[in-house]
Amino acid sequence: MSMIRTDLAVEAAEFHRQQPDSALPGVTQEEWQSEGIGVTRVQITSQEGAALLEKPEGTYLTLELSAVKRREADAFQRAVHALAESLRALLPEQESKSVLVVGLGNRLVTPDAVGPRVVDQILVTRHLIAHAPEHFGSFRPVSALAAGVLGTTGLESGELVRGVIQQAHPELILAVDALAARSAQRLCSTVQLGDTGIVPGSGVGNSRQALNQQTLGVPVIAIGVPTVVEAGTLARDLTGQQGEDELSEMLVTPKDIDVQISDLSKVIGYGINLALQEGLDIPDIDLFLS
Amino acid sequence: MSMIRTDLAVEAAEFHRQQPDSALPGVTQEEWQSEGIGVTRVQITSQEGAALLEKPEGTYLTLELSAVKRREADAFQRAVHALAESLRALLPEQESKSVLVVGLGNRLVTPDAVGPRVVDQILVTRHLIAHAPEHFGSFRPVSALAAGVLGTTGLESGELVRGVIQQAHPELILAVDALAARSAQRLCSTVQLGDTGIVPGSGVGNSRQALNQQTLGVPVIAIGVPTVVEAGTLARDLTGQQGEDELSEMLVTPKDIDVQISDLSKVIGYGINLALQEGLDIPDIDLFLS
Amino acid sequence: MSMIRTDLAVEAAEFHRQQPDSALPGVTQEEWQSEGIGVTRVQITSQEGAALLEKPEGTYLTLELSAVKRREADAFQRAVHALAESLRALLPEQESKSVLVVGLGNRLVTPDAVGPRVVDQILVTRHLIAHAPEHFGSFRPVSALAAGVLGTTGLESGELVRGVIQQAHPELILAVDALAARSAQRLCSTVQLGDTGIVPGSGVGNSRQALNQQTLGVPVIAIGVPTVVEAGTLARDLTGQQGEDELSEMLVTPKDIDVQISDLSKVIGYGINLALQEGLDIPDIDLFLS
Amino acid sequence: MSMIRTDLAVEAAEFHRQQPDSALPGVTQEEWQSEGIGVTRVQITSQEGAALLEKPEGTYLTLELSAVKRREADAFQRAVHALAESLRALLPEQESKSVLVVGLGNRLVTPDAVGPRVVDQILVTRHLIAHAPEHFGSFRPVSALAAGVLGTTGLESGELVRGVIQQAHPELILAVDALAARSAQRLCSTVQLGDTGIVPGSGVGNSRQALNQQTLGVPVIAIGVPTVVEAGTLARDLTGQQGEDELSEMLVTPKDIDVQISDLSKVIGYGINLALQEGLDIPDIDLFLS
Repeated sequence: MSMIRTDLAVEAAEFHRQQPDSALPGVTQEEWQSEGIGVTRVQITSQEGAALLEKPEGTYLTLELSAVKRREADAFQRAVHALAESLRALLPEQESKSVLVVGLGNRLVTPDAVGPRVVDQILVTRHLIAHAPEHFGSFRPVSALAAGVLGTTGLESGELVRGVIQQAHPELILAVDALAARSAQRLCSTVQLGDTGIVPGSGVGNSRQALNQQTLGVPVIAIGVPTVVEAGTLARDLTGQQGEDELSEMLVTPKDIDVQISDLSKVIGYGINLALQEGLDIPDIDLFLS
Repeated sequence: MSMIRTDLAVEAAEFHRQQPDSALPGVTQEEWQSEGIGVTRVQITSQEGAALLEKPEGTYLTLELSAVKRREADAFQRAVHALAESLRALLPEQESKSVLVVGLGNRLVTPDAVGPRVVDQILVTRHLIAHAPEHFGSFRPVSALAAGVLGTTGLESGELVRGVIQQAHPELILAVDALAARSAQRLCSTVQLGDTGIVPGSGVGNSRQALNQQTLGVPVIAIGVPTVVEAGTLARDLTGQQGEDELSEMLVTPKDIDVQISDLSKVIGYGINLALQEGLDIPDIDLFLS
Repeated sequence: MSMIRTDLAVEAAEFHRQQPDSALPGVTQEEWQSEGIGVTRVQITSQEGAALLEKPEGTYLTLELSAVKRREADAFQRAVHALAESLRALLPEQESKSVLVVGLGNRLVTPDAVGPRVVDQILVTRHLIAHAPEHFGSFRPVSALAAGVLGTTGLESGELVRGVIQQAHPELILAVDALAARSAQRLCSTVQLGDTGIVPGSGVGNSRQALNQQTLGVPVIAIGVPTVVEAGTLARDLTGQQGEDELSEMLVTPKDIDVQISDLSKVIGYGINLALQEGLDIPDIDLFLS
Repeated sequence: MSMIRTDLAVEAAEFHRQQPDSALPGVTQEEWQSEGIGVTRVQITSQEGAALLEKPEGTYLTLELSAVKRREADAFQRAVHALAESLRALLPEQESKSVLVVGLGNRLVTPDAVGPRVVDQILVTRHLIAHAPEHFGSFRPVSALAAGVLGTTGLESGELVRGVIQQAHPELILAVDALAARSAQRLCSTVQLGDTGIVPGSGVGNSRQALNQQTLGVPVIAIGVPTVVEAGTLARDLTGQQGEDELSEMLVTPKDIDVQISDLSKVIGYGINLALQEGLDIPDIDLFLS
């Protein structure tokens, strides 16, 4: 049967386990807490598992950030540290690798703006290190790019990123994008990290060329936030049938999506900064009062 | 029985007519074409009709703008002229009345941004007339205000508008806001004009104090664009049952909402300018190439 | 002789003292340190002093924030606390007075954007207290408004503020605006607090109706940042003569004005929040890395 | 003697002709009218001329757009057509060459925002031609990129542009940037087109790697708008002496720079679209009422 549409490995596994014939060979799942934040690791280690979950073989970490969504007083610090810890677990060992953070998506469409808005938070150091190594030599070189939208640039995100790789030679890509989930409950309350790259625009817009080790020649860690459920997916879930055609052009998002995107962009941006740079101080932000 | 949630009088009437006992006393409906644009007028002339449709007594004009949504080559000019004609039909007779255009909604949430973005298009003349009457004396005095959002100002839109009325004494309010529809098909393809005022935020956020002749002391013409369907409404329509609770916090919007809002804000802004000022030239914009 | 153009009381006094006949009756000046930040208080206590300095009688505090301009590591915290302390010294005694923070100026012109951008940082509480007094009852009621620009609203800032006062009844106004200085050295490195109100747009645009106790009926504390020198003032300073006419339409600003405005808006916004609300935690932000 | 700082060839030539020994071998100058707009062509055809004017050998066209600055009723149409005609005179002959429009400068600093804001106006067609050649095959392929700022990306504009060239293979670059002039009178009232490329940031920020045929491998046509005079240049002009050091970090701009940048971005964007695409309709915009 045809899979229900989700970008989350954890949802795909969950959905499969609910089916009558639920064996998931080559898929393992573990859960633990980090800073009081629930973390789930799904590992897909076989071609069969990859085919069943419609996701490439690799490691997927999902953080449960409903404390951020509820804007609990200490949620910001806890989430930033948990995210940095999870991200470090996926980073290649060599500490000093240079990194390009790519924000995918459309800044003008609120549920698709998380990528560009994370880029706004990134501590960019590459130019500082080049111009004043005596002051900034201890930082890891980081550059950042909001890749823009095909409709306003005429350029695929993949073309732009490949071009930057050829010129600036980052050794690792962090790609941040909005995702589609199956469950409305997960919207803006989870973050998925994966070491298998990303297909830009799979969350909101049309699907594009993949960004991964094969297409870019360097490792790509994806950081995704489910911000939408496709209305067609919701309709099928509710009715058990294919929805109306017009719903396929519709998305379901939370009413307070602006607040959620703003908070999550800060959490993810600071989490990336903390993972990439040693000994950084993270301010103690109360999301509710920020 | 409890009404399905819609801000559109035309949908409310349509829904009621589908019910077993479908008499709609005190509600009349007419349809015609203006510049090739379909216009529907619903008039509610009795308390009974108002109660059945859950809308105040008054006149509601709905323009069918799917030509704009399809970005047909001459759609912009046709829609602007049709909208200006419909708006003029609702304007009080005295030509020179001063007007305050109020954009309701949250600029940072794409489906809720239509009000503030229409304000960006308004030809503001009040200050010009005051400072250089010899050049601008033939214009109608127009001021414009994006009322902002309670969460970032601490002020209700109604408080702000009443304050401006006390100070600047506009004789007519045009209030532009996003609306909720029942049918996904109507999203971003219709505009409703009404002479009975508006309840801000009924489309996207929480409902606030009404803006109308009773609360403000001057006539209020509302211009509304349906940009969302409440996910709970969609679920009830699909399943015939009350939806899950979490869906009540979710909205359904078109995937290309940014393009739709951008186009509609131009159409409505120029339409208002053309209705309010005599002999204005409207540029010939091809939405597809703009 | 005609005064050189400056909005800073401290510069006006300095200029006057350099003149041959330099008596400044009814003007006192004191200096001290707060959190390592230099503070100067100029008090104008006579009509003669007011006439000589072309400033109303009252108290003017100037903070020397060149540590912020140099982005020293602990400058943010020090500046926020010094600004809050100075602001508290000007606040009327009664702790719980409700406050409206007004950001004057044009968000689209970088050196004039400091007012609206401070408003973005304000902790707005009025609506929270009204809707959930059990949680927020201990906060002081604060609302905030970016007054916009006459050319795009057709409304004077003063009209808008008076209207809000009539509706929402704040008991104190804090008005934030960009100022003109005489010395390029002071640009973006000082903040002036004063208890005598403000004339909007005196920094960048055309001068408007004053906002003060006389015109608004409630006390007005002004917070001003010099971000421009008028090019005509600079030319007169350099040449000792009246400059060319075209220079009167020109402004002098720092090259890195975007960074300066961004930093100062955070310092002033957090400083206001700390002064208005008891026991607020201010995050430890390194401006250089933010 | 050391040249006074200007990016305008026409100013450099004018300045040199005022000097005692004013021979300018290998520099020719012609003037004419196009659509009532004054056009000046400076051609530098020798190394000696290039050294004297501190500009590379090539052709520089300057349009006098003070009618736009005064917002005359028909200025928009006239300026767009004159700019398109001048730009076509510099385009390589082969009509169908693909073009990348690069907007240089910082969107957040008003006088430096003209490059990114022109990009907002560009009719981008490359992706449409690729995906629907049957509808868009008659258009010239155009892509567009706002290159961002080193401080927020860690990437030089030149790196980004070279990367895009390697991936998307445009055959011609149009680079739009803010320039520095010597005379305050020219600010926002002239546009310079040149076929010798550009050094990004020479107008406002620090000077970067040149974008030209030598560094990029494809022809580069520069479109520059003088929006600032360096305060040091102004001071030297006024006093005949080197100015104070602090002035070297200051810029002089018009007070109404936001309006000027907004108008000029539209004129240049539509002018580029008209030059690049055959038979495009340009809307009849009254800048004053827009």
